[in-house]
Amino acid sequence: MKIGIYGYGNLGKGVECAVKQNPDMELFGIFTRREPSTVKTVFCDTPVYKADDVLNYKNDIDVLVICGGSATDLPKMTPMLAEHFNVIDSFDTHAKIPEHFANVDISAQKGGKVAMISVGWDPGMFSLNRLYATAILPNGNDYTFWGTGVSQGHSDAIRRIEGVEDARQYTVPVEEALERVRNMENPELTTREKHTRVCYVVAKEGADKAKIEHEIVTMPNYFADYDTTVHFITKEELMRDHAGIPHGGVVIRCGATGKDLDNKHTIEYKLKLDSNPEFTASVLVAYARAVYKMNSRGDKGCKTVFDVAPADTINVSREYMLAHML
Amino acid sequence: MKIGIYGYGNLGKGVECAVKQNPDMELFGIFTRREPSTVKTVFCDTPVYKADDVLNYKNDIDVLVICGGSATDLPKMTPMLAEHFNVIDSFDTHAKIPEHFANVDISAQKGGKVAMISVGWDPGMFSLNRLYATAILPNGNDYTFWGTGVSQGHSDAIRRIEGVEDARQYTVPVEEALERVRNMENPELTTREKHTRVCYVVAKEGADKAKIEHEIVTMPNYFADYDTTVHFITKEELMRDHAGIPHGGVVIRCGATGKDLDNKHTIEYKLKLDSNPEFTASVLVAYARAVYKMNSRGDKGCKTVFDVAPADTINVSREYMLAHML
Repeated sequence: MKIGIYGYGNLGKGVECAVKQNPDMELFGIFTRREPSTVKTVFCDTPVYKADDVLNYKNDIDVLVICGGSATDLPKMTPMLAEHFNVIDSFDTHAKIPEHFANVDISAQKGGKVAMISVGWDPGMFSLNRLYATAILPNGNDYTFWGTGVSQGHSDAIRRIEGVEDARQYTVPVEEALERVRNMENPELTTREKHTRVCYVVAKEGADKAKIEHEIVTMPNYFADYDTTVHFITKEELMRDHAGIPHGGVVIRCGATGKDLDNKHTIEYKLKLDSNPEFTASVLVAYARAVYKMNSRGDKGCKTVFDVAPADTINVSREYMLAHML
Repeated sequence: MKIGIYGYGNLGKGVECAVKQNPDMELFGIFTRREPSTVKTVFCDTPVYKADDVLNYKNDIDVLVICGGSATDLPKMTPMLAEHFNVIDSFDTHAKIPEHFANVDISAQKGGKVAMISVGWDPGMFSLNRLYATAILPNGNDYTFWGTGVSQGHSDAIRRIEGVEDARQYTVPVEEALERVRNMENPELTTREKHTRVCYVVAKEGADKAKIEHEIVTMPNYFADYDTTVHFITKEELMRDHAGIPHGGVVIRCGATGKDLDNKHTIEYKLKLDSNPEFTASVLVAYARAVYKMNSRGDKGCKTVFDVAPADTINVSREYMLAHML
């Protein structure tokens, strides 16, 4: 199965690496809006093409993995490409998923292709676990905690403050809240009770640090509703201690069964990731396999992880699956 | 959708309770090998029929949940019933799954029915998590730990020893081994390093306790390969402190990504269950829904959890799923 990568940032690099781990896949190449000769790929033998030329390769690519941003790239790219290719994206603006789904579905139906959206870990594996746990324990509550991990959006918000040279923001789940959930207390938790935010900031020379800190902790939507800690560090410390992009989190559902609902159960799904983009890329690549299998069987239209039989995500025979994985 | 229960032990009672939690389902009734008038159901309005009469109700039941034992019941019951009903079972003898699958598939294909086997938590939700995690992180190792929970098979093995009146055996995961796995050490663990076994035994009057203890800890297959602790208690203590059937466990996969495989990730799925049979029943009922939906679309033959699109397990609309669960 031949995989194309459309867009080449951290996520695209992750896909380039993930494809190499799957012997049933081959990397056709990368499509970029930059001048191909200036792009340094992770593996030196990866072909690089111009994004504008992608339609010339319609018959050479089985699944195109679209690695763009959710704010402006994917709402345009995925519907545009889904008419011509089997595609998959990691669209993660939860509130706009129904709209994105509808747009992508029109194109994919028209072209007879499978287009899978919102694949990664949240949306993605976390969504799957929310759904499975709710199906099994309809009488219960679920909780999603994120972190400890770097939030790109919050880091960017800090960087836009006057006097800030660079910044890294970590989202941290509140251990006490997690314990209450695990103890099946079914607590009602406010935003502040669930997560704290920890910021590492490099200030420009002569900048007013007190003012920067105040602007961060009072920033609406991003920080005002959280307990936020700000640490000023040097550029060298930032590069040395905060260069990675770790993330993770946990989905927990507590539910009750029995005649009087007196037996309690918890289902917990937890991720601890050294690299958010590489893990997301690995999920995309597993589901790219499913996209290919589904379209090969004649399926078409927009799909999500909810529509995929688990067997389609993996490269093992049915015999092996029954004998060794079930 | 009308659900029938075939076999009425702890698992069947769990299914009876679980169906009540799902407003899209109705309980048609219970089929038992006992005399129906002697069976006390959890809910007093549940109809009870003779197992031998089940074929008279072929057209009244959408999915029959077969609640028998894996050793002798299910290998006969499921192939027999799959020709006439959509069925689901919790067959859990891992080594014999391929054989059971083949037998059930012949009947289900013949009758044009969907027959789902080996549904529960292991096999079942644990299998799903092993598969998903392997698909995402092909370069890694996975580990399954069971417990802390009651093992029925091991409890029964103790009861068969001369001088034992009653017994309860708990399987306990070794916390140190779990920590090594969570720390991504990718350890090679022996049977003894992964789990310990703790036994609560009621001895008959005048029985030789030292002899009983020796017979337990040296019993091949069941205890000899484990560190086993034996506690002698009274019948009253057993009833008071060990009446429940809790269980649980964890599936963890650690894997690496990136050019040099230097980014590590862990995916962990953990269950903590007050009642093993009620939770297993809840999984069966969610997948009974999928059996019904799949057969309604014209699907037939033997299936496992690997073949089921997650959306088919839940009673919510596609619109709700996209807007609120993804």
